[in-house]
Amino acid sequence: MNKRLILKLSGSVVVVEGALLFLPLIVSLAMRGGDWSAFALTIGIAVALGFALSRLRPRDDTLSAREGYAVVTLSWLFVSFIGALPFFFSGAVPSLLDCFFETVSGFTTTGATILTNAEGLPRGLLMWRSLTHWAGGMGVLVLSLAVIPKMGGRSIYLMRAESSGPSTEKLVPRVGNTAKILYQLYIGLSLILFLVLLLVGVNWYDSLIHTFGAAGTGGFSNYNGSVAALNNPAAEVILGVFMVLFGVNFAIYYHVIHRNWTALKQGSEWKLFLGIVLAATLCIAFNIAGQPRYRNDFGYALRASFFQVSSIITTTGYATEDFNLWPQFSRALLLLLMTIGGCAGSTAGGLKVIRVQLLFKSMARDIRKTVHPRSINVIKLDGRALDDKLISGVQGYFFAAMMIVMVATLAVSANGFDFETSFTAVVATFFNIGPGLGWWVPRAISPSSIR
Amino acid sequence: MNKRLILKLSGSVVVVEGALLFLPLIVSLAMRGGDWSAFALTIGIAVALGFALSRLRPRDDTLSAREGYAVVTLSWLFVSFIGALPFFFSGAVPSLLDCFFETVSGFTTTGATILTNAEGLPRGLLMWRSLTHWAGGMGVLVLSLAVIPKMGGRSIYLMRAESSGPSTEKLVPRVGNTAKILYQLYIGLSLILFLVLLLVGVNWYDSLIHTFGAAGTGGFSNYNGSVAALNNPAAEVILGVFMVLFGVNFAIYYHVIHRNWTALKQGSEWKLFLGIVLAATLCIAFNIAGQPRYRNDFGYALRASFFQVSSIITTTGYATEDFNLWPQFSRALLLLLMTIGGCAGSTAGGLKVIRVQLLFKSMARDIRKTVHPRSINVIKLDGRALDDKLISGVQGYFFAAMMIVMVATLAVSANGFDFETSFTAVVATFFNIGPGLGWWVPRAISPSSIR
Repeated sequence: MNKRLILKLSGSVVVVEGALLFLPLIVSLAMRGGDWSAFALTIGIAVALGFALSRLRPRDDTLSAREGYAVVTLSWLFVSFIGALPFFFSGAVPSLLDCFFETVSGFTTTGATILTNAEGLPRGLLMWRSLTHWAGGMGVLVLSLAVIPKMGGRSIYLMRAESSGPSTEKLVPRVGNTAKILYQLYIGLSLILFLVLLLVGVNWYDSLIHTFGAAGTGGFSNYNGSVAALNNPAAEVILGVFMVLFGVNFAIYYHVIHRNWTALKQGSEWKLFLGIVLAATLCIAFNIAGQPRYRNDFGYALRASFFQVSSIITTTGYATEDFNLWPQFSRALLLLLMTIGGCAGSTAGGLKVIRVQLLFKSMARDIRKTVHPRSINVIKLDGRALDDKLISGVQGYFFAAMMIVMVATLAVSANGFDFETSFTAVVATFFNIGPGLGWWVPRAISPSSIR
Repeated sequence: MNKRLILKLSGSVVVVEGALLFLPLIVSLAMRGGDWSAFALTIGIAVALGFALSRLRPRDDTLSAREGYAVVTLSWLFVSFIGALPFFFSGAVPSLLDCFFETVSGFTTTGATILTNAEGLPRGLLMWRSLTHWAGGMGVLVLSLAVIPKMGGRSIYLMRAESSGPSTEKLVPRVGNTAKILYQLYIGLSLILFLVLLLVGVNWYDSLIHTFGAAGTGGFSNYNGSVAALNNPAAEVILGVFMVLFGVNFAIYYHVIHRNWTALKQGSEWKLFLGIVLAATLCIAFNIAGQPRYRNDFGYALRASFFQVSSIITTTGYATEDFNLWPQFSRALLLLLMTIGGCAGSTAGGLKVIRVQLLFKSMARDIRKTVHPRSINVIKLDGRALDDKLISGVQGYFFAAMMIVMVATLAVSANGFDFETSFTAVVATFFNIGPGLGWWVPRAISPSSIR
């Protein structure tokens, strides 16, 4: 292991985090929140640590796959520890462990919180909390790839180790350039969302917070009542639409901008994703339409259903309704959507639509093979035949995910929580949604604290 | 499709069922239950239908894999419909659908029941209900293979279609002989269990009923209180041990009888299975030991834990305790054991230990491959290298099983049952256990009806 190179690269990620911390510092100073010194101190630590690590002289510049994973792991640890400091220094969250939980939940875009009253936090800290979602959504490391040019030809290992989903499409030959394009798209989309929210009457602070939460598919809000507290039906619809947009493979937008309609048409993942969103929205809308709350207003049921489906399948975790009061079928369907998640190459979590697609295709092949043992069956996706090893990798990923869910459920239930609470809490945190159907994870952003 | 051959072979299975029906007929006559005419009538129908089908003259004797599956499917439908008739004819269960549910639950060794008071059933019917477990445990069709000699050289397709688990070990070159050996072992073990139960003071009727239920890993009892109603700690331990014995690959006993210690030593599945039983028993015993009921008697906690672990992992479903009152950790662990199940080539259900073993091995290989992309990794089991296609098949099986569980959970929850009830009911029926942790499936054999 090239330890110096690993530390040096992790150091540059810390410097980027230091730069990000200027936004909450400015917000804090502008709004006289009193938490500015906590940010100033953390920036000092981040910059000092970052520059110290960047002065290391590694033996060589080559990076193996194994070292790529080490860089990613170490970077996440560094940014999480340093990101937790403002919460601690400001005295807003007394326990260092709670600060760490909140920051990890932020950077991983999970959105589970230890705060019982988010509204009591200073404005700068709330901004930082939401910014961790935005930075974590695309991956802090990919951001570093975009801003730090010279990382050697092997930086594809970093991109692979950091990316979610079975295959990372290289849009342009150089990894650094691909990262830059992705970030430009991410910033552009975020900016549009921010402006549209302003347009429908949401104030700039709330707009920024919810843009960060929706773009990173995280789910932190500055209100205990989540998006419902905005009391703005137009904003609900807009956020619902944008959560879906952030759940789509970003390469799609690149193809749209370059009018590459063939590539767009060939992609089946985004179509399936939108199909699932549509089908689930209709199922839940009809399922809840009978409840007194929605009885005389199907439009309301449809809007509530769409927002929740969009929020859950993209693993964001925002809520406009207390979906714990919805019929059991709707709740079970939401749980299924959590595990599916968004498209590969988006900011959304979950298994990813393309994996589910491949798993179904291989299941169909296995059934064909059983009935016709001598037939030759190749799995095709978007016109290309897929390697058996890729399929097996996805199948293995599915098993590993289910194993982690099962073992974690067992561990949580050892604390005396009932099965539904343990299971949904594990699914909600493992797939980065945030609020579970029980009461353990949710706290402040729990749907039951709405209205 | 060679329709005549398919019908002819299914017909022979019906004849075997007709023969099996003589046992409850005799019991009914001996105990003057009044339900003997229902059996006589059903036997008449089975024999008439069976002989009519056996007179069909197929074009040829060859059987494709596809036709093998058709024979198995059709045979299960035939035996389930005909097996339901005694319940209906006797008037004990008025709804034909309920009769069918009870019979399917019996033959599939699930053990879920529609009866709210099993004790109210005539003695002959109770015997037939349990006999369906015993016949279904080894597979009615395998029984037919054992008793009907001339089925053509391709009968391996029938054995494969009927068997559970990834590979069927052919003990001897001829399939018919393998089936015979398996049935001799099955009958032998059942006989020993029956005699040992008599020895510890259980009456002949109860012994026979619980032998059938344990051997087939089904779980029907003639008491609403399941095995707890026997009020016999020795019988509980004996049944616990024998359920484990019936959950082991039967080839093991063949190796023991022929003193083939090498084959025994090489097999890792049965060792892992026993290890899981031991570990789970200890975990649950220590977990429940703090409850008032067990506080001053760790031996009692150990016995209760062992019986329940043995009953659940072998997917039998017998109960001596109301495990719904146990701590959440123990309940979650039991749920996990349900999905694992017994060994391949046993009468137990579930995913099967060998599949879980292979899934973990392939997961370990995938992790190695990710970190060391150029390393060559072959998965070995019991000293033999395994084909990638076999692994992929097992992974696909796992996904298919999970999909069925998810979709079925969704369907059950549409009836308004909460998530825990829906999920556990589906797991309990899909993996052939019977009682869930909720209240939907259990009814008469529910643990909550105990003591």
